Amino acid sequence: MSPPDLLLRPIGQVRSTLVDRHLAPMQGHEGAPDAWLEIDPSFARALLGVSAGDHVVVITWLDRADRAVLEVHPRGDPDAPLAGVFATRSPHRPNPLGLHRVEVRQISGNRLRIGPIEAIDGTPVVDVKAVLDEVADA
Amino acid sequence: MSPPDLLLRPIGQVRSTLVDRHLAPMQGHEGAPDAWLEIDPSFARALLGVSAGDHVVVITWLDRADRAVLEVHPRGDPDAPLAGVFATRSPHRPNPLGLHRVEVRQISGNRLRIGPIEAIDGTPVVDVKAVLDEVADA
Repeated sequence: MSPPDLLLRPIGQVRSTLVDRHLAPMQGHEGAPDAWLEIDPSFARALLGVSAGDHVVVITWLDRADRAVLEVHPRGDPDAPLAGVFATRSPHRPNPLGLHRVEVRQISGNRLRIGPIEAIDGTPVVDVKAVLDEVADA
Repeated sequence: MSPPDLLLRPIGQVRSTLVDRHLAPMQGHEGAPDAWLEIDPSFARALLGVSAGDHVVVITWLDRADRAVLEVHPRGDPDAPLAGVFATRSPHRPNPLGLHRVEVRQISGNRLRIGPIEAIDGTPVVDVKAVLDEVADA
């Protein structure tokens, strides 16, 4: 029996000044800018209670990633020993989910100003979650 | 134009003594047990470099969740004011992704002993990521 297929629905997208993934920082804390998270109006009710100053985890779909990659040289450094993608944060992985802990700077209707975030303009967003303080994450 | 559909492929599953989601803790740090993460052999190479003692983020697909829910009473407390699911960690949300920060206790081939984790037996796993120490998460 084949495993089930699991279908994600985009709930919004990132609107950023970053447009070239090769020029984007690898992680949010490496100099990434703030960006707008535009939530689709049909999901706007799910934002009730999200406030400026909150820290949230945004999950994106890294649609430019190569899903066939299982091992990488971490951080693209050819001198670094090969590592399995599950031991890294490489965007290239079987399911190219991006995990971004950000601060909500401002809310304007169904648009959230968030940052810092390294995702490029147009990146689909699939989830937003409260941060669990108990474990300082995620 | 409709947005694209984003298809996840299960990379493995959780094998746990927890079999009833109504009896499972709400979060890993609330008394959840350790469990086995069985990685599909076709993705085993992606584990290269994952070691006992590592902290990783496991992303699951909470297949029992209700994807139509946009607002909940947090933690199932009917006295708690309604909140949008994006302001919570409710499993019920448009894309029922579960985020679990766990420690790798032991590795046995393509099986990882991990914990603590509140996901029930048979829950599909879609990703494993290194924890970013810089942001203490996620």
